[in-house]
Amino acid sequence: MAAKYIIIGGSAAGPKTASKIRRMDQEAEITIIQKGKYLSMASCGYPYFVGGVFDNPNQLISTPTGVPRDPGYFSKVKAIKAIVETEVVSIERDSKSITVRDLKSGKDSVMAYDKLVLAVGANPVKPPIPGIDLEGIDTLQSMEDAVKLKEVAIRKNVKKAVVVGGGLIGIETCEAFQLAGIEITVIEMQDQILPFMDWEMAKLVENHMVSKGVKVITKKGVTKFLGENGKITGVEITGGEIIPCDHAVFSIGVRPNSKLAIDAGLKVGDSGGISVNRFMQTSDPSIYAAGDCVEVTNLITHNKQHWPMGDAANLQGRVVAQNIVCGNIEEYNGIIGTGICKVFEFTAGATGLSQKMAKNEGFHNIITAIHSAPDKPGFMGGKPVIIKLIAAKSTGKLLGMQSVGLGDVSKRVAMAAMALHGRMCISEMVNLDMPYAPPFSPAIDNLIAAVHVLENKWQHNMSGISSVELKEKLDRGEKPFLLDVRGPEEFEQMRLGIGEVLIPLGAIRDNIHKLPKDKDAEIITYCKISLRGYENSSILNAMGYTNVKVLEGGIIAWPYEREL
Amino acid sequence: MAAKYIIIGGSAAGPKTASKIRRMDQEAEITIIQKGKYLSMASCGYPYFVGGVFDNPNQLISTPTGVPRDPGYFSKVKAIKAIVETEVVSIERDSKSITVRDLKSGKDSVMAYDKLVLAVGANPVKPPIPGIDLEGIDTLQSMEDAVKLKEVAIRKNVKKAVVVGGGLIGIETCEAFQLAGIEITVIEMQDQILPFMDWEMAKLVENHMVSKGVKVITKKGVTKFLGENGKITGVEITGGEIIPCDHAVFSIGVRPNSKLAIDAGLKVGDSGGISVNRFMQTSDPSIYAAGDCVEVTNLITHNKQHWPMGDAANLQGRVVAQNIVCGNIEEYNGIIGTGICKVFEFTAGATGLSQKMAKNEGFHNIITAIHSAPDKPGFMGGKPVIIKLIAAKSTGKLLGMQSVGLGDVSKRVAMAAMALHGRMCISEMVNLDMPYAPPFSPAIDNLIAAVHVLENKWQHNMSGISSVELKEKLDRGEKPFLLDVRGPEEFEQMRLGIGEVLIPLGAIRDNIHKLPKDKDAEIITYCKISLRGYENSSILNAMGYTNVKVLEGGIIAWPYEREL
Repeated sequence: MAAKYIIIGGSAAGPKTASKIRRMDQEAEITIIQKGKYLSMASCGYPYFVGGVFDNPNQLISTPTGVPRDPGYFSKVKAIKAIVETEVVSIERDSKSITVRDLKSGKDSVMAYDKLVLAVGANPVKPPIPGIDLEGIDTLQSMEDAVKLKEVAIRKNVKKAVVVGGGLIGIETCEAFQLAGIEITVIEMQDQILPFMDWEMAKLVENHMVSKGVKVITKKGVTKFLGENGKITGVEITGGEIIPCDHAVFSIGVRPNSKLAIDAGLKVGDSGGISVNRFMQTSDPSIYAAGDCVEVTNLITHNKQHWPMGDAANLQGRVVAQNIVCGNIEEYNGIIGTGICKVFEFTAGATGLSQKMAKNEGFHNIITAIHSAPDKPGFMGGKPVIIKLIAAKSTGKLLGMQSVGLGDVSKRVAMAAMALHGRMCISEMVNLDMPYAPPFSPAIDNLIAAVHVLENKWQHNMSGISSVELKEKLDRGEKPFLLDVRGPEEFEQMRLGIGEVLIPLGAIRDNIHKLPKDKDAEIITYCKISLRGYENSSILNAMGYTNVKVLEGGIIAWPYEREL
Repeated sequence: MAAKYIIIGGSAAGPKTASKIRRMDQEAEITIIQKGKYLSMASCGYPYFVGGVFDNPNQLISTPTGVPRDPGYFSKVKAIKAIVETEVVSIERDSKSITVRDLKSGKDSVMAYDKLVLAVGANPVKPPIPGIDLEGIDTLQSMEDAVKLKEVAIRKNVKKAVVVGGGLIGIETCEAFQLAGIEITVIEMQDQILPFMDWEMAKLVENHMVSKGVKVITKKGVTKFLGENGKITGVEITGGEIIPCDHAVFSIGVRPNSKLAIDAGLKVGDSGGISVNRFMQTSDPSIYAAGDCVEVTNLITHNKQHWPMGDAANLQGRVVAQNIVCGNIEEYNGIIGTGICKVFEFTAGATGLSQKMAKNEGFHNIITAIHSAPDKPGFMGGKPVIIKLIAAKSTGKLLGMQSVGLGDVSKRVAMAAMALHGRMCISEMVNLDMPYAPPFSPAIDNLIAAVHVLENKWQHNMSGISSVELKEKLDRGEKPFLLDVRGPEEFEQMRLGIGEVLIPLGAIRDNIHKLPKDKDAEIITYCKISLRGYENSSILNAMGYTNVKVLEGGIIAWPYEREL
């Protein structure tokens, strides 16, 4: 008799599981039960739909050849029964059945399964802030949300909007609205946007957003939504300031939708996500789970965490299908924590641990390096890419990488993610044979060059100081000798303005009298990207200076104000 | 006393070695001796200069801030003595000295060294074909060549040019000339261009070039250059055909310039490159070598080979410097064979072994897969990327990857190159956590999806057939049942035209009568990219068909003629 597989959830992991089961087992009865109206939505595309990259919402729910992925499609092409606008109200594990409710008729019925898959996703967090039910406060989580926000973007009667939350979705939404001519304020409770990055990297992204006219407020939460006639007119933030607005988008995160699992007595982890083993099997061997509702293993920290990402959901769905059909043949080992987003002309991505995460996770003996350089030769129109690397000091093992900039960040993050999956060390990455040609990279790729900086620090050929460390030093009132080694024209155009002295690199040897007399004086040197800064530190070391540091990443990676 | 380091060669590896030595040792006397006039040329940029991506040749020999890297720059900024237009005529190893000849005065002199570095590069191969000394036959190897070809490109009095050799430089030159409005014919002796790729992948690149108006002739060599008044007027190729032209560029490869090393009694390998150990040290411990003149280890085959690439030269230069200054602290283990080029809108890249190379190197038990898909979602304007993977069948270890297409090939080649450096297996690559957002990739990245195809074949969930295997089958007169499962409109627009039957995937179950009655009949099925083809193969298998194969990569990856 044909096996009965029921998949609860029809967004990403669900349809992927169902389709893969079908490809492996043509006999099975496969049913997808979806609470909403739509199936197999490309939900990561919502911000781009809202922002006008494309205007037909059907593209979000269609195959590449334009066929809508509706119940008819699933039935005809894949012989999968997809039931929409139907909620699963309970799982009866003893009888291996579920109770479903038709949301239009309100009628309940019972369906039996051999194997059940929970792909029930996550829900946006909406804390009980006063006024949160006012009209004009949305999330960007469902197809309906996307269509609604798209209308807001094209109706042009919203002038000012507030985005609450500076994570991935918040930032993407913000760009979408800004493109629609809406004045945007982002409010983030933490001291930085994009919390998966370190502060100084996220700050560079924030600076870019500000340069595009976005207002970013950090370290403030929304305390109240203000309204008139039931419609939002503003938000009050910590400290009492009021930001007037016609619209607000809530994007402070999502929470795994594990209610059904909890009610059924399945094991749920500390993160709130459904617990699964390496085969994506829940505590009930007949029930698997995948996507935004589960918790997964972080392969670097070995801790469990919630990881609501579309790519992971798809991969997990495939694994679930393989294991359901063939009996636990495929492992899903976990994630390394890779994310990326586009913010106007900037790209910001990260993989593995940030310095902050490493510290929080108890990796204390680490080494970091920041490197800035164009993503291809100047004559090919290279654009800057800034990379921060984190590695274990004792072993040289890579722990994490972050990258931001106008250039091709995505390639470098992908390379670093692969290196993390391969558990590679710095020593294995100094001489990588990468695809080099001038349209694609500098002769020494940005990631390799960043590894070289890390190795230079590791082998004590260079002492680095990060922008944050230097700023703290200056704020404490310390007065290191600050030495910019660029040319006078570059200096004229833009400089840090922190009391630095300018001596172009080529003139250092002739200007020894301008340097501190005390050979033990702290000297911090830099240039645009700190390659010349590095050269200079070698020169000064050779002159007998004992305390020379290079400002890592140079002026390009300086996240604070600069003088123009 | 300060150490005396002499570096022979001032292109890529030489200046890199010198600069890195200086950063590590401020006391040393560092001398670069360069035969030509220019130093530190970005020679990989020549085709883009010729093609008009930029027009100022100084950009090829300047720092990012526009300072020319001439002897004055090296002296002032780096305290490195760079001597140009000077040839090293011999190495006297016993006395640790070299004899140099000033090419302007013709005068010889002797210089002593503590450590010597050979970074003498490679020379273009110019076989003694009759007429090869005619005016109008160039190579694209030196700065002078680049300037000369740039003039050809802008003078507009060359109407037809022939590029001899379809390797990386040949193809890049070809694009450069084509952009300048010159009618181009590429002549390649092998049966394909880009010999580091498999035939069917290279053929896709060739097809793109042909679509841009380039004529490509394979399996023919140049037998004679024809001329009038000492100037080229055409080339005669194998078989006697004459291709009229006003200009020819010779790019059939380069040979390591190891004469000086041989004369000095240093060990030279079978490839003709100077032998070095893992510290880039020649058979004389006081002499190191780097760049296009050495031979390196292929980390996959463990054989030695010549690898004249700009990125490798730079990395080797860094290693030489570290080892010279600190005494063999850094290893250069070798290359994996990564290359890439841009050809009009196409990118073609490869890393590791091609199927052909794997066979030649004795890797017989391999498995391959071809995958086509857009590089991001359709709604983001995704463009096709075609990937071919080669893995060891017994272990699942990745051996090589090739990719071509209009989309972001460079990222996927870089990812695969990192996986090869990390000695990763298919099972470690099925669930990679990569940087996913719609502007950068599909939810399942192209490389991961290609790994899934390979795994599907490996686990016998899918039988694939390559375009080449199918074509051979058809050419032998075999008549498999050919089943295109796209929609009628797609079929109307373009089809293989090899006797196929069209049944859209969604209609398969209703059209069983159109399928062969014999369940053991060979059926080959496909769609545009063969995802629907793969779905269909599962359906047919379930119907009891025993010999169903999916045409890998679908119509997008079909290298032969198609019907429009």
